[in-house]
Amino acid sequence: MRLELVNTGTELCLGDTINTNAAWIGQRMAALGIEVARQTIVPDGGAVREAIEEAASRADVVLVSGGLGPTNDDVTRESTAELLGLPLVQDAGVTAQLNAYFAKRNKVPAVSNLRQAMVPVGATVLENAFGTAPGLYFPAELGAAKGWNSHIFLLPGPPREIKPMVENCVEPRLRALLPDGANRRVIYLKLTGIGESEIVEKVEKDLEAIAGLELGYCIGKGDVDVRLAGLAGPVDAGAEIVRDRLGEFILSEDRRVLEEVIIQLLAERGEWVATAESCTGGYLSSRLTDVSGSSKVYGHGFVTYANEAKEKHLGVAADLLQLHGAVSEPVAQAMAEGCLRTSGADYALSITGIAGPTGGTEEKPAGTVYVGLASKGHETVVRKFFYPISRDRFKLLTTQAALDLLRRQIQGLPLG
Amino acid sequence: MRLELVNTGTELCLGDTINTNAAWIGQRMAALGIEVARQTIVPDGGAVREAIEEAASRADVVLVSGGLGPTNDDVTRESTAELLGLPLVQDAGVTAQLNAYFAKRNKVPAVSNLRQAMVPVGATVLENAFGTAPGLYFPAELGAAKGWNSHIFLLPGPPREIKPMVENCVEPRLRALLPDGANRRVIYLKLTGIGESEIVEKVEKDLEAIAGLELGYCIGKGDVDVRLAGLAGPVDAGAEIVRDRLGEFILSEDRRVLEEVIIQLLAERGEWVATAESCTGGYLSSRLTDVSGSSKVYGHGFVTYANEAKEKHLGVAADLLQLHGAVSEPVAQAMAEGCLRTSGADYALSITGIAGPTGGTEEKPAGTVYVGLASKGHETVVRKFFYPISRDRFKLLTTQAALDLLRRQIQGLPLG
Repeated sequence: MRLELVNTGTELCLGDTINTNAAWIGQRMAALGIEVARQTIVPDGGAVREAIEEAASRADVVLVSGGLGPTNDDVTRESTAELLGLPLVQDAGVTAQLNAYFAKRNKVPAVSNLRQAMVPVGATVLENAFGTAPGLYFPAELGAAKGWNSHIFLLPGPPREIKPMVENCVEPRLRALLPDGANRRVIYLKLTGIGESEIVEKVEKDLEAIAGLELGYCIGKGDVDVRLAGLAGPVDAGAEIVRDRLGEFILSEDRRVLEEVIIQLLAERGEWVATAESCTGGYLSSRLTDVSGSSKVYGHGFVTYANEAKEKHLGVAADLLQLHGAVSEPVAQAMAEGCLRTSGADYALSITGIAGPTGGTEEKPAGTVYVGLASKGHETVVRKFFYPISRDRFKLLTTQAALDLLRRQIQGLPLG
Repeated sequence: MRLELVNTGTELCLGDTINTNAAWIGQRMAALGIEVARQTIVPDGGAVREAIEEAASRADVVLVSGGLGPTNDDVTRESTAELLGLPLVQDAGVTAQLNAYFAKRNKVPAVSNLRQAMVPVGATVLENAFGTAPGLYFPAELGAAKGWNSHIFLLPGPPREIKPMVENCVEPRLRALLPDGANRRVIYLKLTGIGESEIVEKVEKDLEAIAGLELGYCIGKGDVDVRLAGLAGPVDAGAEIVRDRLGEFILSEDRRVLEEVIIQLLAERGEWVATAESCTGGYLSSRLTDVSGSSKVYGHGFVTYANEAKEKHLGVAADLLQLHGAVSEPVAQAMAEGCLRTSGADYALSITGIAGPTGGTEEKPAGTVYVGLASKGHETVVRKFFYPISRDRFKLLTTQAALDLLRRQIQGLPLG
């Protein structure tokens, strides 16, 4: 099945908005076994007509987003109706919804808003739960007179509007068009602590030998999703291979990221974690507190960027700092243990290193970092890593390594 | 001038990579006064040929990215040469560069790498300082026989390779093609603490009255760039209007973000800042330490998520917490003053609030937040904000408000 995306939006062409919808739709379609054959992005206004015409003449399915709003340069609805030779009539249901939407806000719809209630004859209205612009679906037979064989979907541009509509209105219709579409499934195995190339080496050959299994990799923030799509039999067989060979690296099978997994593991156990960071400067605590509900398992964090702060707040001995330097195994250990003591938590993670690009030495180049984990009832462990990369990536990979050390400790896995 | 982008990359169609290049290029072109008329994205392989052919038949300039690598499905170079009927010959300069690139890594180029040294006759090689794939430029006259009038640039896909090449190889050639291109300039005035609609209200009418001034807005992370492009006269006149009416909101004129500005202001004064965060959970300290060199002005940070941590590490009185609750003006003040005292810094920022979505009450709904600033030699100030939005945005806007309070204090501006 050939599927094309058409996006209209001047903000996309000016670069004022990054096109995250296209990537999200690409992933959703890959899960259905459909590769997006082309994306076309044009500014608001008349250019969308030509783009839809070209896409519909080539593709089995065209998803158009944007241009359904109330302003003059929103012409997606009218352009499509014109191309297909369909008259527009005011839809009573959409009109009622628009009136209700504005009444709730103590307003009445403007005439320009009522354009959104015009529906081409033969098209199906797709409900938009998060905005005023309904979507529209044109079954392929409406284009038969033009020699097209293309199902056309018109959808709004804002991510929070289009995403539920793709899931609820587009995907069921695509599944119905696909042979075996109703029986397809997808599993995302999210792995961390292992690179894509090593994953490939360990499982790809055997996964590719499974007939009907579609394999893909999505590189995330410090993790890799192995995407297995197809019918239940091959997908389950593939997942078993990955679990069997790489089980300790799998942090979730539902796309949850590491901080979400950690917060849930701790909440289930009624345990607490505290943090003591130098070079990551609060990024570790920020990731943990990105998760709603983290206040039940996280109470104390320290950003001890200066040596004096390590001494004063974590009780790191001055002579330890002098003897080994702040970036050292003994200091990482003392930070974690001091943090555990002063916070009263069950686990304390510490990080000390050189984020770079400056501050490195020949002995300890930029990118050198020690991660410590002190735990009630366990010996403190310290691991050394080397991430000579950009500051952003350094912070990301270092905090990922720290959180993964904690995950492994909690789950009783080897500590690497 | 009509410019089109063509991107090739299966990862873009599968959604495994977000197309950030397209937005970045859109912004660069807007600064030159060129709106991108269309973006076309196709998977790796043969589809790029058709996309280039269509774009070149419509546009004055086509920027193609991706498909210059050594693998079999990288066919951008060969497809373009074929479309233009140009034979490929091995280029001695590129070959020498490839050999040098691999020699530096103790390797020799594979045969597949040497394909990257094949140059279509008449095309100009564009140097790639960060990768093995050189770019290529085809002046419009090479397509005259096809009836095209299109300058074609082939560029690599990875952001760190393509960005310097657009700046150094593409933009000078586009400037030469534009009337007055050599005399064009652009200013980005970055504003914070004021919304786009208010900016529009205050300056847009008068900016639009300046002949030859191109005006745009880029919404950033907690800030808005007002983009003024055109010839020096109108651009300077426009910038003066913005500076005159909105000067206190301008944080930079060189796209530096707020944390960079803060770190520089402090470094210039030899002053230090410390942080005490509750609901933002370390995001404030993480932003400050995102800036290289921040260790010269930032040493101590506290994430006092639990009340007990506020008491123990910042000396907030237990009865203050009991009487007013953790989310209150007196507690924000006590956190800032306690942080100033224990850190010995010149300034201390505190944040206490309810990030949501849970944890709110009728009196203090989710989104309520207090920001405190204690300063040596100044009275402590506390400001209340209300951001009933997603957790991510809450953390962003709250830390932006805190950093802006500090900027205004340092610069002697009204504290809002």
